[in-house]
Amino acid sequence: MAEAEFELIRRYFMRPGNPDQQDSGTGVICDIGDDGAVVRLSAGHDLVISTDTLVSGVHFPPDTSAAAIGHKVLAVNLSDLAAMGAAPRWATLSLTLPDVDEGWLAAFSASFFKLADAHKVQLVGGDTTQGPLTITVTLHGEVPCGMQLTRSGAQPGDRIYVTGCLGDAALALTILKNTGVRSENQTALFERLDYPKQRIEVGLLLRGLATSAIDISDGLLADLGHILSASGVGARINVDAVPRSLAFKAFVDENADVYEPLNMALSGGDDYELCFTVPADQCAEIETRFKTTGIEVTPIGEIESQTGLRCMRSSGEVWEATKYGYEHFASDRTP
Amino acid sequence: MAEAEFELIRRYFMRPGNPDQQDSGTGVICDIGDDGAVVRLSAGHDLVISTDTLVSGVHFPPDTSAAAIGHKVLAVNLSDLAAMGAAPRWATLSLTLPDVDEGWLAAFSASFFKLADAHKVQLVGGDTTQGPLTITVTLHGEVPCGMQLTRSGAQPGDRIYVTGCLGDAALALTILKNTGVRSENQTALFERLDYPKQRIEVGLLLRGLATSAIDISDGLLADLGHILSASGVGARINVDAVPRSLAFKAFVDENADVYEPLNMALSGGDDYELCFTVPADQCAEIETRFKTTGIEVTPIGEIESQTGLRCMRSSGEVWEATKYGYEHFASDRTP
Repeated sequence: MAEAEFELIRRYFMRPGNPDQQDSGTGVICDIGDDGAVVRLSAGHDLVISTDTLVSGVHFPPDTSAAAIGHKVLAVNLSDLAAMGAAPRWATLSLTLPDVDEGWLAAFSASFFKLADAHKVQLVGGDTTQGPLTITVTLHGEVPCGMQLTRSGAQPGDRIYVTGCLGDAALALTILKNTGVRSENQTALFERLDYPKQRIEVGLLLRGLATSAIDISDGLLADLGHILSASGVGARINVDAVPRSLAFKAFVDENADVYEPLNMALSGGDDYELCFTVPADQCAEIETRFKTTGIEVTPIGEIESQTGLRCMRSSGEVWEATKYGYEHFASDRTP
Repeated sequence: MAEAEFELIRRYFMRPGNPDQQDSGTGVICDIGDDGAVVRLSAGHDLVISTDTLVSGVHFPPDTSAAAIGHKVLAVNLSDLAAMGAAPRWATLSLTLPDVDEGWLAAFSASFFKLADAHKVQLVGGDTTQGPLTITVTLHGEVPCGMQLTRSGAQPGDRIYVTGCLGDAALALTILKNTGVRSENQTALFERLDYPKQRIEVGLLLRGLATSAIDISDGLLADLGHILSASGVGARINVDAVPRSLAFKAFVDENADVYEPLNMALSGGDDYELCFTVPADQCAEIETRFKTTGIEVTPIGEIESQTGLRCMRSSGEVWEATKYGYEHFASDRTP
């Protein structure tokens, strides 16, 4: 790419108001346009840093729209901050592009900024390079000192919760792999794959209450497994209690011969819901707090001192996953 | 890549002591292993963020050693922080690799950590993905509130300085392009290309004295141009005063028919020296401060109120660059 093309790309990410937003509550002292950005944290807060890279054909199907990619690369990082109980503040964006496509850039940047604005995230810097489509966002947030949520505090007796519904994104990806198209009848499922939610407000609400938290990016079993291993505990969950959406249930009921609903909901990835643990005597408080948010939260099991994860059906039978963990699009890559 | 391979890669970047380094002066509260890192800035400091992406075949020749790449991806970010007057503290590393090559990983990570350790930089997080070789480092530093160096403060009458010698890396790259090999007789030049310096200590020393600063990554003329444009001023420089190394002079003297020494020193890139401006009455102070560091610093010209950059020879003649700015390896990419 010639220098003029880099300038063009940069223009999509320089927004009016950015250069002089100093002291307007954004904490930005210097942003895009110098060698580095300078930002100021709120007093009494620690800095929380998350970074995620999305590679075309690995983390999203190659036919994914620019708007969906612009959303997703920020959403996956917001999801990490949510799991830490952090409030997001500043992002950097490293964009490696094969060529300059103004339509793509316009759609990507509009979608990125729409989500950034919804969470008051300021883009403070980045880098544009030429190469195969690869996007890295590093997101910075803050948390009052000592109030971060981690994976390592779960205690025997704690109740295990998940937000929202699981499995929609994995189901959409499976439909896409099986049929080669984004079915128009399943927009609710494909929305979950292309425009993942992020649970920033849940993370803030869990501060001081949850003993551990993680975002579900690799599938519930794998991610809950990270909590158990970091906390040195085990758990028992009721797999029938894991919430699934109406769209998920309707599709799977009609295609029960092809799809494995429990595996998809428990081992599918890309949900970006939160899984967290709460002491039993705080469950009433959690459920009261969630009522005001309109976000569904479901108890699915309990932490135990015996290590390992025991999955049970409502009937009392043991359930064994046929697939454990999720390796994104790459695990079973389509050409 | 299978999950086991990602685990293998991650192991190269998890070091003994990392997980429990809380409160050992590193400022790290939580690092690699949770959804995000949590770090604590020094009181009264702002956060400085820099990010750079290196793409194989674009920012470094494809035959560059893993050790050189591991050094360079951190060095270019250190250079940005140096230009801001910041002290480096924490890095994240996003590594996109085509496959798992343990020899490559061992050399890359050893070199990365050697440079990180030299500057007390803690690796606090990252992401590993499969795809064409692309590496993004986001580096975090801190600066006492209000003390950052920027590009925008140069004033008419200020003196313009550069550190070290310019043009070595550009000359090495040109030799490589012309001959196809890293000449063994020119190791000093190739060291500058493969293992760029970074001027962290210079940035710290310039706090409160320099009116502007930038690191020379795209060539002196282009980067000084950024200072002039951000500061709304112009400049006059003596191109013959721009320092060149003994290795540079020796090679160019012998090959004067092929190489253009002034263009290479003024418009070549990848120097990673600093260019900065200082009020005339502070020049003695600057030169005194530099004596203790052993780092060469050379006055090359003066800021003027008339915009534009005027390049003169020592003889008083005007000099015109035949190439302005530098677009890394990509501008003239070898196959």
